[in-house]
Amino acid sequence: MHNNFKRDDQMQVGLIGISGYGGTQLYQLLKHHPHIDNIHLYGHDLTKAKPVNQVIPGLIHESGTLVPYDANQIMAENDVVFFATSAGVTTKLAKPFLEHDFPVIDLSGDFRLKSGAMFTKWYHKQAPATAWLQQAHYGLADFSSAEQSNYIANPGCYATATLLGLAPVVMHQWIDPTSIIVDAKSGTSGAGKQLSEMTHFSNTNENLQIYKVNQHQHIPEIMQQLQCWNSDISAIQFTTTLVPLTRGLMSTIYVKVKTGISEQQVEQSFEQTFADKADIHYCHQKLPMVKQVVGTNYCDVGMVFNPVTKIITIVSVIDNLIKGAGGQAIQNLNQRFGFSLNQGLSLEPIWP
Amino acid sequence: MHNNFKRDDQMQVGLIGISGYGGTQLYQLLKHHPHIDNIHLYGHDLTKAKPVNQVIPGLIHESGTLVPYDANQIMAENDVVFFATSAGVTTKLAKPFLEHDFPVIDLSGDFRLKSGAMFTKWYHKQAPATAWLQQAHYGLADFSSAEQSNYIANPGCYATATLLGLAPVVMHQWIDPTSIIVDAKSGTSGAGKQLSEMTHFSNTNENLQIYKVNQHQHIPEIMQQLQCWNSDISAIQFTTTLVPLTRGLMSTIYVKVKTGISEQQVEQSFEQTFADKADIHYCHQKLPMVKQVVGTNYCDVGMVFNPVTKIITIVSVIDNLIKGAGGQAIQNLNQRFGFSLNQGLSLEPIWP
Amino acid sequence: MHNNFKRDDQMQVGLIGISGYGGTQLYQLLKHHPHIDNIHLYGHDLTKAKPVNQVIPGLIHESGTLVPYDANQIMAENDVVFFATSAGVTTKLAKPFLEHDFPVIDLSGDFRLKSGAMFTKWYHKQAPATAWLQQAHYGLADFSSAEQSNYIANPGCYATATLLGLAPVVMHQWIDPTSIIVDAKSGTSGAGKQLSEMTHFSNTNENLQIYKVNQHQHIPEIMQQLQCWNSDISAIQFTTTLVPLTRGLMSTIYVKVKTGISEQQVEQSFEQTFADKADIHYCHQKLPMVKQVVGTNYCDVGMVFNPVTKIITIVSVIDNLIKGAGGQAIQNLNQRFGFSLNQGLSLEPIWP
Amino acid sequence: MHNNFKRDDQMQVGLIGISGYGGTQLYQLLKHHPHIDNIHLYGHDLTKAKPVNQVIPGLIHESGTLVPYDANQIMAENDVVFFATSAGVTTKLAKPFLEHDFPVIDLSGDFRLKSGAMFTKWYHKQAPATAWLQQAHYGLADFSSAEQSNYIANPGCYATATLLGLAPVVMHQWIDPTSIIVDAKSGTSGAGKQLSEMTHFSNTNENLQIYKVNQHQHIPEIMQQLQCWNSDISAIQFTTTLVPLTRGLMSTIYVKVKTGISEQQVEQSFEQTFADKADIHYCHQKLPMVKQVVGTNYCDVGMVFNPVTKIITIVSVIDNLIKGAGGQAIQNLNQRFGFSLNQGLSLEPIWP
Repeated sequence: MHNNFKRDDQMQVGLIGISGYGGTQLYQLLKHHPHIDNIHLYGHDLTKAKPVNQVIPGLIHESGTLVPYDANQIMAENDVVFFATSAGVTTKLAKPFLEHDFPVIDLSGDFRLKSGAMFTKWYHKQAPATAWLQQAHYGLADFSSAEQSNYIANPGCYATATLLGLAPVVMHQWIDPTSIIVDAKSGTSGAGKQLSEMTHFSNTNENLQIYKVNQHQHIPEIMQQLQCWNSDISAIQFTTTLVPLTRGLMSTIYVKVKTGISEQQVEQSFEQTFADKADIHYCHQKLPMVKQVVGTNYCDVGMVFNPVTKIITIVSVIDNLIKGAGGQAIQNLNQRFGFSLNQGLSLEPIWP
Repeated sequence: MHNNFKRDDQMQVGLIGISGYGGTQLYQLLKHHPHIDNIHLYGHDLTKAKPVNQVIPGLIHESGTLVPYDANQIMAENDVVFFATSAGVTTKLAKPFLEHDFPVIDLSGDFRLKSGAMFTKWYHKQAPATAWLQQAHYGLADFSSAEQSNYIANPGCYATATLLGLAPVVMHQWIDPTSIIVDAKSGTSGAGKQLSEMTHFSNTNENLQIYKVNQHQHIPEIMQQLQCWNSDISAIQFTTTLVPLTRGLMSTIYVKVKTGISEQQVEQSFEQTFADKADIHYCHQKLPMVKQVVGTNYCDVGMVFNPVTKIITIVSVIDNLIKGAGGQAIQNLNQRFGFSLNQGLSLEPIWP
Repeated sequence: MHNNFKRDDQMQVGLIGISGYGGTQLYQLLKHHPHIDNIHLYGHDLTKAKPVNQVIPGLIHESGTLVPYDANQIMAENDVVFFATSAGVTTKLAKPFLEHDFPVIDLSGDFRLKSGAMFTKWYHKQAPATAWLQQAHYGLADFSSAEQSNYIANPGCYATATLLGLAPVVMHQWIDPTSIIVDAKSGTSGAGKQLSEMTHFSNTNENLQIYKVNQHQHIPEIMQQLQCWNSDISAIQFTTTLVPLTRGLMSTIYVKVKTGISEQQVEQSFEQTFADKADIHYCHQKLPMVKQVVGTNYCDVGMVFNPVTKIITIVSVIDNLIKGAGGQAIQNLNQRFGFSLNQGLSLEPIWP
Repeated sequence: MHNNFKRDDQMQVGLIGISGYGGTQLYQLLKHHPHIDNIHLYGHDLTKAKPVNQVIPGLIHESGTLVPYDANQIMAENDVVFFATSAGVTTKLAKPFLEHDFPVIDLSGDFRLKSGAMFTKWYHKQAPATAWLQQAHYGLADFSSAEQSNYIANPGCYATATLLGLAPVVMHQWIDPTSIIVDAKSGTSGAGKQLSEMTHFSNTNENLQIYKVNQHQHIPEIMQQLQCWNSDISAIQFTTTLVPLTRGLMSTIYVKVKTGISEQQVEQSFEQTFADKADIHYCHQKLPMVKQVVGTNYCDVGMVFNPVTKIITIVSVIDNLIKGAGGQAIQNLNQRFGFSLNQGLSLEPIWP
């Protein structure tokens, strides 16, 4: 590998895309990471340098500067680069980093799928070359290690909450593999800073808007990972509803249990699966609310077994910008560079 | 029957429970009903008369008065009485009205179930006598007529949205009867004016709280009605989530379609079922949002068929205080007294 | 005058601008007005007819149609026309109506000021001809009559709440005319349907944004009216804050009382001024909250006298889209055509 | 002094009142303070130990325990104690700490006023002994040092935002001392976790509620401090409005400038006053919004001069639970124990 960063060094990191909500959150986390010395900011569509505090209304107290994008400069100045860019950008920009085997953590969806055809189908954009897609690591950090990878595709927010909630049930063989239904709810920060009718305050407030039923672009990455865990699963039902809050995501999941499986077996699977996961908090039958994780890197999961319908209701909650974006990117950084998994992620919930 | 109200008369109506959110809404609708002359207000726990505008902060411009409850006086002064009281109250108070066969429209849950044992199981309260429960009419107004009944139990808000959304699929024989899953979301007005931690602003705002999974008291009335329509249905999965808005309810319903059933058949069922329902608006594949019905008596229903999973996602939205309470009570009044079904319900959505 | 509408006829009315929030609200009110038979809708930038329910997400149940704008057709088909268009539109379109002395009720700011120079200064747009500005009637309906006018400029929302709150203190001679300070707060519907960073949900929610300090375009119309009432007033201090709610506006007003004036005199002025105003509800020292008027045409006003500072704090609340737009337009219609002032405005507050 | 803590030691701190919103926030800040080793939690009304995660829904991931209150134990185990209790509690509990001259940082209002009579007048409760009130230090940390004090009364949230915004204008002699008007707006977290009608979600949402006009208990501490700075000020006008958000406070302040004072002089006063204040960010004429400081210990202040009215509009925003409570308590801790003023306060705004 190109990169010769040593565990005891302090890192230099690059970030492209600080002006998006995920990028801002990632920047705030990087600032407090004990192994990071400097964060260099690049704007992929800038022609001249610009102060951070003129670009992001929420970062008015920052003194840093965004400079125009230059791949060679980025590789020269940093040990790793983060892309918090929107769909389609890294497809165009990643080439030099891949060619130099330079460490990249990509928060966009461009490199999450192994199949370029699937990417094009769900994202309606040109896909990266298949060889590169194959090489990229899908960084669901609590269940995989980015240790050996130099291109890490950070999972989507809906995918993260849903996969972590489903892990115990799909890894074991006690569910009807055709029965998975996901009813996910998210606040507006997941939709980004781009203005839209759906996120205009007068439209979002006092409203519930269901969208992209069976068409959400996180569906294929969920399916891809589920099939790694359990090849019997051939499809899921997946729905997203926009609710009037800014931060937070709840994935409510319904799964039918095979005949003969007891509540105790189900309970045990959850306990065992999460036993060694520091950032996944299993709440047993006390279903979690969104607010208990907002501001943190936790994914809290609860579960209720219905003996009449044999359906278990799983509730998985995350802060979509932390566990669902910037926080998990830090976990991937930690794995890749040999730091402990939750380094820099000792965060406090926003309460109230 | 006791009551000898004639269709061309103007009515006198009594209302107990105006101070609750449902009661206030009902009062506002009654005021504008073209066949109602006077609304008499009674407080079931008052000892002396009290001005309405001192009881309800939102009715500060009203000049009416609440007087202490007296069953005989109520029957003497009115043609019909509405109870918008909380659970357990009509169990105690309804006797004289039932004995005199005096018309009652009861917005509480007390008389919705045919079985006293079920009432006690789900409401944790003593049930009305079985004979009376049998006699009460479950007033799901768009699908049944209160014409012949003098005790009308007005359906719950979750039950209304869910049953109207499910009607086309359960009345026809093309679904797997064990596959019904309901993920309902509601604002805080459904929880009433009573203070609680869950509805304290600092707790509700920027939060999603799932509650009463498999234990919501509207489950048995939904089951009771579904079984009237389709005796193959023996259970449903039902979940409620409190979302940070005041008014509005969305019931998202997942049902598996039997093998061999086509999207066209499904579509036709919806079209046929709702063809003559003036207050149910079928949106086809454009799923409705909550805000398009808030302020009105509409139930808007949309549906998407997933050819891969054979699951249809049904979305049914209502204003929980109108279609889910006061508005449907007006429909029941109209049916009982021979007015046209939507008399007094020509309402405008709150937009934005 | 051109128009020969007689009081007992049913009216035909035209509306341009239904797609804006104020226009939608006005349309909903016109539908229920007892003297209106038909509402014709025109789109000033349409080239072919379009169904209303495809233009406005909140009016999905409507069956009407918008047709392209044609001044002659509008005059031929209607007894009066409403413009609910944005700033600058009626400046361009009003000419034929003015020339034919055809009744116009204009909800935009274009004809509110008597001085074209002032209009240009505050709106940064070309002004209508001075002769026409002079001819237009500023329709602050509770304090002036549109009876004799064929061009009625409907006041702005901030202006309405502020002027009604200030009326008692400026009409009497007991205040320091240099002491008026207005701190107004409004929800997002006042900013319209146009997308903007400030009204993007993620920016508005959990935020307070102060804007246009000393530069709000409602300042000159407030000043113009105050000076009609009291020529000693030469300036006011006026501030607006965007708060995270959709509907509702509160104007908090501070005024210093002259030495020697007692609380009783102040109280009397308020009582007398509002004694005959059916739609202004004087709450005495119980300061009103926004929610008690939202959904209605009421302006509720309360007042507290501070004997130490000699400052009175006046709080005036309205529904910005009703009293602050469509509702007041109906009042002006009623005055112009001889109906009683509150015809069609018997509205219920949205509670909760 | 009793306490012999040395600057290089790691501290042991006690906290009473973690279950309130201010207490929770303070606890979260203390956890990350580089000079604090242990935080001991006491419940002043507990009879046996209780896990933190059963007391505070937002702290479900915490493993600590609250133990019953015991003054001697508290002094034995800690170097300093924080009281984040409601009004009236420290009046009763502070005695042993005062007698032993043990360091206390009191976030409640009990010891902020120098006059017991004033405390009783505004808080409607018995006051602490006058000698102790005199001895307590009012810890407006950016403008005073708690270095020599063992009883530090942490300022109220409204007082903090208002005093910091007013500092430049009252310290200089260029304002009319009778002209100060404060229109403050706050979210619900300032009202605490106690349930109330006003903070019931259905009442707070889509509403603006003005309260305690001229009667807010933060008025006397503001006056007391203003008079320390400028004895000409004998009264202010002070209003508070509850707005539908959880965190954040904006104090909008109007002050009349003396004749002959120029905008430049005003501007200079602001620049000079805040020049050395690391946690006060002067935004010049770009008025701050609440969201740019929520999550941080910043107070952001902006100002606009109106040459016509000679009024300057000052806008001061804070996070009421950080700068207005827990964060300022940390500043006072830092001053008292010789750490740098912003130790432990390097916080990131919640964006979005």
